[in-house]
Amino acid sequence: MKSIGVIAVGGYDEVGRNMTAIRVGTDIVILDMGLKLDRVQIHEDVATEKMHSLDLIKMDAIPDDTIMSNVEGDVRAIVCTHGHLDHIGAISKLAHRYNAPIIGTPFTIELISKLTKAERKFGTKNKLCTLMAGDTFQITPDLSVEFIRVQHSIIDCVFAALHTPDGIVLYANDFKLDRTPTLGEPPDFKRLKRLGKEDVIALVVESANVQRSGKTPSERVARELVRDVLLGTEETESGFLVTTFSSHIARIKTIADAAIEMGRRPLLMGRSMDEYFGSAQRMGYVDLPSELEMFGDRKSIDKMFNRVMTDGKDKYLPIVTGHQGEPNAILTRIANGSTPYTVEDGDKVIFSANTIPNPSNIANRYAVETKLQMRGARIYDNVHVSGHASKEDHWELLRMINPSHVIPTHGNLEMTSAYAELAEKVGYVLGDTVHILRNGQELTLE
Amino acid sequence: MKSIGVIAVGGYDEVGRNMTAIRVGTDIVILDMGLKLDRVQIHEDVATEKMHSLDLIKMDAIPDDTIMSNVEGDVRAIVCTHGHLDHIGAISKLAHRYNAPIIGTPFTIELISKLTKAERKFGTKNKLCTLMAGDTFQITPDLSVEFIRVQHSIIDCVFAALHTPDGIVLYANDFKLDRTPTLGEPPDFKRLKRLGKEDVIALVVESANVQRSGKTPSERVARELVRDVLLGTEETESGFLVTTFSSHIARIKTIADAAIEMGRRPLLMGRSMDEYFGSAQRMGYVDLPSELEMFGDRKSIDKMFNRVMTDGKDKYLPIVTGHQGEPNAILTRIANGSTPYTVEDGDKVIFSANTIPNPSNIANRYAVETKLQMRGARIYDNVHVSGHASKEDHWELLRMINPSHVIPTHGNLEMTSAYAELAEKVGYVLGDTVHILRNGQELTLE
Amino acid sequence: MKSIGVIAVGGYDEVGRNMTAIRVGTDIVILDMGLKLDRVQIHEDVATEKMHSLDLIKMDAIPDDTIMSNVEGDVRAIVCTHGHLDHIGAISKLAHRYNAPIIGTPFTIELISKLTKAERKFGTKNKLCTLMAGDTFQITPDLSVEFIRVQHSIIDCVFAALHTPDGIVLYANDFKLDRTPTLGEPPDFKRLKRLGKEDVIALVVESANVQRSGKTPSERVARELVRDVLLGTEETESGFLVTTFSSHIARIKTIADAAIEMGRRPLLMGRSMDEYFGSAQRMGYVDLPSELEMFGDRKSIDKMFNRVMTDGKDKYLPIVTGHQGEPNAILTRIANGSTPYTVEDGDKVIFSANTIPNPSNIANRYAVETKLQMRGARIYDNVHVSGHASKEDHWELLRMINPSHVIPTHGNLEMTSAYAELAEKVGYVLGDTVHILRNGQELTLE
Amino acid sequence: MKSIGVIAVGGYDEVGRNMTAIRVGTDIVILDMGLKLDRVQIHEDVATEKMHSLDLIKMDAIPDDTIMSNVEGDVRAIVCTHGHLDHIGAISKLAHRYNAPIIGTPFTIELISKLTKAERKFGTKNKLCTLMAGDTFQITPDLSVEFIRVQHSIIDCVFAALHTPDGIVLYANDFKLDRTPTLGEPPDFKRLKRLGKEDVIALVVESANVQRSGKTPSERVARELVRDVLLGTEETESGFLVTTFSSHIARIKTIADAAIEMGRRPLLMGRSMDEYFGSAQRMGYVDLPSELEMFGDRKSIDKMFNRVMTDGKDKYLPIVTGHQGEPNAILTRIANGSTPYTVEDGDKVIFSANTIPNPSNIANRYAVETKLQMRGARIYDNVHVSGHASKEDHWELLRMINPSHVIPTHGNLEMTSAYAELAEKVGYVLGDTVHILRNGQELTLE
Repeated sequence: MKSIGVIAVGGYDEVGRNMTAIRVGTDIVILDMGLKLDRVQIHEDVATEKMHSLDLIKMDAIPDDTIMSNVEGDVRAIVCTHGHLDHIGAISKLAHRYNAPIIGTPFTIELISKLTKAERKFGTKNKLCTLMAGDTFQITPDLSVEFIRVQHSIIDCVFAALHTPDGIVLYANDFKLDRTPTLGEPPDFKRLKRLGKEDVIALVVESANVQRSGKTPSERVARELVRDVLLGTEETESGFLVTTFSSHIARIKTIADAAIEMGRRPLLMGRSMDEYFGSAQRMGYVDLPSELEMFGDRKSIDKMFNRVMTDGKDKYLPIVTGHQGEPNAILTRIANGSTPYTVEDGDKVIFSANTIPNPSNIANRYAVETKLQMRGARIYDNVHVSGHASKEDHWELLRMINPSHVIPTHGNLEMTSAYAELAEKVGYVLGDTVHILRNGQELTLE
Repeated sequence: MKSIGVIAVGGYDEVGRNMTAIRVGTDIVILDMGLKLDRVQIHEDVATEKMHSLDLIKMDAIPDDTIMSNVEGDVRAIVCTHGHLDHIGAISKLAHRYNAPIIGTPFTIELISKLTKAERKFGTKNKLCTLMAGDTFQITPDLSVEFIRVQHSIIDCVFAALHTPDGIVLYANDFKLDRTPTLGEPPDFKRLKRLGKEDVIALVVESANVQRSGKTPSERVARELVRDVLLGTEETESGFLVTTFSSHIARIKTIADAAIEMGRRPLLMGRSMDEYFGSAQRMGYVDLPSELEMFGDRKSIDKMFNRVMTDGKDKYLPIVTGHQGEPNAILTRIANGSTPYTVEDGDKVIFSANTIPNPSNIANRYAVETKLQMRGARIYDNVHVSGHASKEDHWELLRMINPSHVIPTHGNLEMTSAYAELAEKVGYVLGDTVHILRNGQELTLE
Repeated sequence: MKSIGVIAVGGYDEVGRNMTAIRVGTDIVILDMGLKLDRVQIHEDVATEKMHSLDLIKMDAIPDDTIMSNVEGDVRAIVCTHGHLDHIGAISKLAHRYNAPIIGTPFTIELISKLTKAERKFGTKNKLCTLMAGDTFQITPDLSVEFIRVQHSIIDCVFAALHTPDGIVLYANDFKLDRTPTLGEPPDFKRLKRLGKEDVIALVVESANVQRSGKTPSERVARELVRDVLLGTEETESGFLVTTFSSHIARIKTIADAAIEMGRRPLLMGRSMDEYFGSAQRMGYVDLPSELEMFGDRKSIDKMFNRVMTDGKDKYLPIVTGHQGEPNAILTRIANGSTPYTVEDGDKVIFSANTIPNPSNIANRYAVETKLQMRGARIYDNVHVSGHASKEDHWELLRMINPSHVIPTHGNLEMTSAYAELAEKVGYVLGDTVHILRNGQELTLE
Repeated sequence: MKSIGVIAVGGYDEVGRNMTAIRVGTDIVILDMGLKLDRVQIHEDVATEKMHSLDLIKMDAIPDDTIMSNVEGDVRAIVCTHGHLDHIGAISKLAHRYNAPIIGTPFTIELISKLTKAERKFGTKNKLCTLMAGDTFQITPDLSVEFIRVQHSIIDCVFAALHTPDGIVLYANDFKLDRTPTLGEPPDFKRLKRLGKEDVIALVVESANVQRSGKTPSERVARELVRDVLLGTEETESGFLVTTFSSHIARIKTIADAAIEMGRRPLLMGRSMDEYFGSAQRMGYVDLPSELEMFGDRKSIDKMFNRVMTDGKDKYLPIVTGHQGEPNAILTRIANGSTPYTVEDGDKVIFSANTIPNPSNIANRYAVETKLQMRGARIYDNVHVSGHASKEDHWELLRMINPSHVIPTHGNLEMTSAYAELAEKVGYVLGDTVHILRNGQELTLE
């Protein structure tokens, strides 16, 4: 048997900048190349698209892949399992150094393509290969990657199963076990259970929410929460604003549907809203309610807001960027009074998102909420459910897959340790069959 | 105009032991007579049913109604708006001193009747009068009380509108604005809105959750959460145990329905489960799924558990007492290994309840969870939504009712203050139109 | 007897922008005119020294003294009890509208004088009058103000006792009951106890830390903590940096003394360090250790840092600005690598301050700590004790002064309510003898 | 070279029940045998002194030393480094199975001796050997153990340095780096530094407070805090009660000294107070102030309290058991009103201890505080500093000792992981030179 190495490049000491390399003999497959945004945020006036990879590595903003030069072997493929920035954001900085194709589902590849086009420092020439969930891509005669459908807070998310001559390495980062999603199909449990009966030598698995007890509620619960807030009021004349993750296509659809049920026209506002949802709609992932309109640039947004103010705020439901209080997002501009949309006493602002808990976001959110409240707005926070598996979801996946080894990733040491503790309850032994890796380390399985 | 007094007897310095008296000239109507359980819990071996009221008053466990002797006037009625112990639990200790009928909805009166029968120290001879939501009871020629349907975590909960010659006093303690309840009808918004156009001189309103942002999700969300946990697993052979509030008839029904959907027989176990649900079913508030069986006493419970162990745990869904880790509840007995039901690796225990956050409960819950986990149980905590209005529900009710004065109750000073702060945002002025009262104080409205 | 009014102008709904007006008949005395910095921080690029008072009022940054136009009477004096910005920071924006002298202790007047000189929008022409602790100033034939020595986190802090024909109003905002201060004398307990036997009709008292149990430790404890960190290590060759409040003269002296004990030269660096400590030293409040050097402007600071790097970091103890992570402070510049001082592995950075818990500060502190740690620094946080009275200090002061009425200030409703709850334990009655006021309200005492 | 094994028996998955075995070839030395009290507390009516070791192991209350049967070799010595129950509490249950002497400092041996005498189930026949800090005990021709003086919250605490032919294993569990202790001498830094230059192959080190930033303040700070509370009040006529850890001889001495300074007679009350302090005094570790009196049994305590009530509470300072709200402690009995000592309005109760944060303790403390407060007591909580090293103390020790390998213990996985993260900053590599062990695992060093 060839020796198999699991190389922790990024995301093993922190949340963000995910990157794992699997070495099978001298063939290497890279899984994800992500960006850690909050390491950028603490610096002022940083434009990442113009920065050199080495500077971003020094800031701990992207994975330190300089360690790859010590690994004997060649990179044969770069595989991304979904389109969030902490999984694809470093592609434009690092991928060009590897003579290897980039493999992803169609939506993920679309986002990678946009990203590399926006890059100003490097040129990414790697071939982009789309692979559908359920399909397999032959990387070398000995190695193939199979995509398995799961659910997450972005569409077209998959697990990657790397088939090697000596068994399977399953990469499960990120996911939720949602049996009643509002867009797309549930995870492919049938395939996952069958995998559990085959020879999975290693499971590399996210640990972002492993410390949360219980199971992560289905997106259907989020839909009930959103509808409960939007439809569950007698103050139907109020202005309403909703903000959510631009990449969360299912959630946006839920909100737009509720708008129509309220008798309001949904307006999708903000550049990233336009980009993500526009792509999803063009690619056929989501039906566009005919009433919905999208506005990407500042001029058309302000023009539309003028119309809203003329027609009456109660005719529209703007769905805007700014859920983390980002300084240039639409919601922040509204809070600053720099759009034609005026917030009045009793208007309702719904955050269909959690605050990603880093101090910059918390400060930004506080500023935007305070300003909105000084104008009379009522805040509905955290009308949301997470896209990450909780403790009992992990328990279930681990028992279903039954791997010989399990390696938690996508977390700081506290999180990966918590995963290890869970795995111990399932019967794994720390240092023997469940492994805590740190950025820069390689685990060799024989 | 007669002077109207709002007398804060209990529940203005704390959560629990609610009691408010409304004095109209020399006619007095008492609203609620509640018990504060945690003041009992910190003492060992206290049997409240045998205790004298003065001792319970000294422990701050029941309202100090000795202040009533200084109020000029006669009590004409005692009105209870729902059947939770913090609203009716002191009836058996205090009501006999007043020559006045006790008025409540049918389910509330049923619970009061059980309570007074269990009392060992005093005899309660007051006439019990049932009044349906939507109906009015004439107390004196000048005074009548109207019940208005609302939702809460117990069935048959109402607001009490006291009609006086000089306007209405609305008593709103407790409630949630649930437009999609799973049992019973939504609050009577039509009547509430009409009230808001009549002359409401005072709103006395609970403040238990006023510090929670947003709105309290509908019980329909709780149903989704319960179903998501019970039906959303591939480990369908596991043992499952659910515990929830015995008085939460709607929730129990949801759980029982999910059991049937799982292909399991629901078993309702524990004395209080039997009492509350049995009453609700006999009175026609809830349909009994024919598969459901109820077991109240220890012997029949243990017998049934023997059958469960023989037939297979995967055939049944026991719904048991013990969500707060109460020492003698069924779940605690299971955790101690003192029932025939044995917890095995991977069995799932669902708390469809929050931990009521006093230190005794927290310690009890910790003990029961630890013992269950040592036997291999997986814990699903807080599969629940609250029955109390949140900040934005309060905002909406206050704007809808538009009272001349508002008096928060059912909270400590931090909570009633938080309500006052909310009322200020609506336009009320502290000390002028929104009033913070303390136990023992009377506010006179002119 | 004349009617006495206590007018809550600012600081009754929040921490910051303190301002109370006492009206005795038609004579008015203003106590404090403060600034609430965090209301400025949430806006970008705001230069307060150029802003109009009405704009600052609209931001809730300074007290809304427009309500004073509805008060019948004339302002006879403006009294400031110490020199922190939340007590004097609005002087330059508001005082010029009143034809009244400004009265303060010498150090407070010095700071007011600097502030009004830096103002760019308004000119403050009010007469500045210094009054020593222990002395009395005759305001009108009927009214005089007496200063009583207390302790706080700035030197020369006093209570103001307003003597009126009908008794005394004592203004106690801010203070700590420190019997073993490291600079200056303990509070004048003898006078306070005598006051308690005279006729104090009202105590207006801060409530910033009233929710903290126990008593606030003496500054002597802070000295032990500082010395324990600075002297209690075997790694005596490391670089050390200390940051603390520039206005905390006693603390800075403690740190400088410890530096000398360590065999290091203390360097005071940063504009505000230079201003506050320089003033205190020139005015004779503190002895300058001959080894200490002060550097106010960037050029001299960088020059000195060059010398430090040449001589060896172990020869010096820089005491720098930046304890809240303020973007332009010295510590932030060091963290950004934009001074000649380089932080190396194992260097120690001591925050002899708490983080003032608003989200902007938390984000700034996080950024500066993260950057320092990435350079290898070790962080010692919160080497500090508070300057505000805790719950038991308040208990003791209230029993000592024994006022007829007590009005908590310098806090949001949660804090003033917590004070009221404490006062109830002493025997006061909410709404009768302990009063919760809100910005804009007047309480009339008869 | 012989292989050296570090065997994690207890305290690697939790705080409490410490036990580590060091195997050098086939010679084994056991370090500590502790009890985890909170695993006992969650069960009702458990009398540990009558229980079998296997039952206590099943409850996770004592280390599971059954794993020792799989280790090839013989136990040559049992070494205890100080006298806290989580280090010696399982001696009476486990030591008799090993044919090996028990080695400790004199005070530790005294406590072990008391413990084995109180045992009702097993007889402990092991030889008890006292070893002074600074001295060495020859275990086998090849193995010796040296005791090195450190500080902790109990007197006579040491590090154990196990000298083997292949280098030293240093066992550092528990300690604080207190350079200004109030009783005894500072840690023997000279010896520790010299050790750092010799060949320390492994450091086994506690991690209880490694997540706390900064350094643990010296006990001198605790003395200042205690004096600040006891002497820093004008209410000198009040009743005062102090409670602290019975085993914390230094703290008790500080309190007794302060009592004398207050002009009050210190009274030491409670069985364990009498035992620990009595032993310390008889053995010459502490001078008894001649005014101090000790009372161990209930009768003499109540008699003394009668005298206190007659003479005046202001003549005495009772130092009592009950800092965790233990049901049968003196403070709890006072709170229940079951001693002659009556608590009156304004009496002061000082907890010179932290609440050990398990839910049982929190509930007990809440009950005792609530009852005291209902009688009018004022509570001073957490007048205390910890006895465990904080993050920066660990940083310093690790750099000073410079071991080849470091193994954190005395913590759950979150704590040992946090230690590993710290060690990484010093240059250690997880899994290579810093090792996270779990109960039952053996690490082999070659």
